[in-house]
Amino acid sequence: MNELKIFSPATIANVSCGYDVLGLALDTIGDEMIIRRVAKKGVTITKITGQDLPLETHKNVAGVAALALLAETDSEFGFEIEIDKRIKPGSGIGSSAASSAGAVWAINELLGKPFSVTDLVRFAMEGERLASGVAHADNVAPALFGGFTLVRSYEPLDIISINTPDQLYATVIHPQIEVKTSDAREILKTTVPLKDAIKQWGNVGGLISGLYTEDYELIGRSLEDYIIEPIRSILIPAFDAVKQQSLNVGALGCGISGSGPSIFALSKGEETALKVVDAMKSVYKKVGIDYDIHISKINKQGIKII
Amino acid sequence: MNELKIFSPATIANVSCGYDVLGLALDTIGDEMIIRRVAKKGVTITKITGQDLPLETHKNVAGVAALALLAETDSEFGFEIEIDKRIKPGSGIGSSAASSAGAVWAINELLGKPFSVTDLVRFAMEGERLASGVAHADNVAPALFGGFTLVRSYEPLDIISINTPDQLYATVIHPQIEVKTSDAREILKTTVPLKDAIKQWGNVGGLISGLYTEDYELIGRSLEDYIIEPIRSILIPAFDAVKQQSLNVGALGCGISGSGPSIFALSKGEETALKVVDAMKSVYKKVGIDYDIHISKINKQGIKII
Repeated sequence: MNELKIFSPATIANVSCGYDVLGLALDTIGDEMIIRRVAKKGVTITKITGQDLPLETHKNVAGVAALALLAETDSEFGFEIEIDKRIKPGSGIGSSAASSAGAVWAINELLGKPFSVTDLVRFAMEGERLASGVAHADNVAPALFGGFTLVRSYEPLDIISINTPDQLYATVIHPQIEVKTSDAREILKTTVPLKDAIKQWGNVGGLISGLYTEDYELIGRSLEDYIIEPIRSILIPAFDAVKQQSLNVGALGCGISGSGPSIFALSKGEETALKVVDAMKSVYKKVGIDYDIHISKINKQGIKII
Repeated sequence: MNELKIFSPATIANVSCGYDVLGLALDTIGDEMIIRRVAKKGVTITKITGQDLPLETHKNVAGVAALALLAETDSEFGFEIEIDKRIKPGSGIGSSAASSAGAVWAINELLGKPFSVTDLVRFAMEGERLASGVAHADNVAPALFGGFTLVRSYEPLDIISINTPDQLYATVIHPQIEVKTSDAREILKTTVPLKDAIKQWGNVGGLISGLYTEDYELIGRSLEDYIIEPIRSILIPAFDAVKQQSLNVGALGCGISGSGPSIFALSKGEETALKVVDAMKSVYKKVGIDYDIHISKINKQGIKII
């Protein structure tokens, strides 16, 4: 096997209460990539379609992640990467993470799986460092593990794969405005009230518990963010209306996807998730902002060969 | 049935990472109480043995909790309460909570269970309010539900019963010094660094996940408190040595029980928990501080009729 064609999923980081630690993988949106093992050492980005992104290996997140992996091997081979970029950069659903994670996952397969999935997260985080300045793992972890993931700790890196209930659907709307990850980080306060932090970790505990016991109501009650959303939502037009309308039609919860501007809602069952599509659309139609919208089951597998 | 004799367990609140939200119930230490339904309305504390505590209903935590329950009934009856107080007040293992929870649990049984367990938590919290000035639920919840509990939210009160692995044992040492709950609360900062809060909720997520998957190593890795323990441990002599020695002999984790001064460790299996007993004892023998020490399985049942 010298070549793999893969689907690498979009992901939702934070998931309301779990800032910097929780994430989940989507099933219907992701990058498609071809990774080819070649005689020439090193990593070459041979083609990018769908978006205008740098082909230079050191400037491309997939390239940087791949190099981080290869630096820990004595591989005789090199790798060529083609990316059909289907996730818009800056959308807040793990665009850079999908490419970084996809590259290292496929190379690991083509090398006979010398690395653990947590190792792959570590390599893919180098792509995240290039993209945003911070080597965060909350998008690359769910892309690589599938389902819901918890980044329990960074030092040492400790990723926990969380049970993902079958009937959980995500609806994600991407208003066509730009929110830079670096800006979205800068507006956050460096300290938080202890009383809000307590509420937040109560919800993290509730969400994780709800995922294991498949208690959709508990999942919904736990999808509240007392720390980040009140600040970041200011950057997203009509956020409150999108959230309220989504909850009105039955979403379990609704919040900012990653650092935005995408907004996600989780629902029990596809029928409700489709109602949320209509509810979200109607808000942005009214305010006259263009959008992309996606509906997806939670992707339990993560990256897959297509 | 006009009279019940019950065991109401000691409890460990916070459990390292879960300040104000997590708690667990113990099996080998607790108050014994007799609750009697009588014709005379109201609540009378007829007898307290073991400790010198007020018999006046309005000054006794069990009395106050019982009155809170009765205020929501149209009961024709009154209740007498006898308490054999086996948990020392101020020990940090839920002494007031055991009496409050025991009273309302038994009265609910004698009335034919008109209230849910969460209602009983709410009534017992009034005892906690009397004891410490704060109506916290992190001790009364595990006393009433058994096992590990999560107080996800106070408004509305939302208590989640968490899976409790069979091989989990607690060792608890109570150095004979006084730390007032109110003092232990006052020295805390009202704001915390966001980066520490993130680590904390990562650990809450890890602990809850480890409890459901019965992954003892993950439970151990998650038993770290970045927010409260660094401050409160200053009030507890030789805390660092007790913790280090406990971990050295194989404890999964070790931290402050509630607001202290008791220190708890969790272990996989009784054998390790017994080694922790010796390790903890040796520290306090060396520094010449008297102590009580307990070893217990986690009590999955909570309060029970004896």
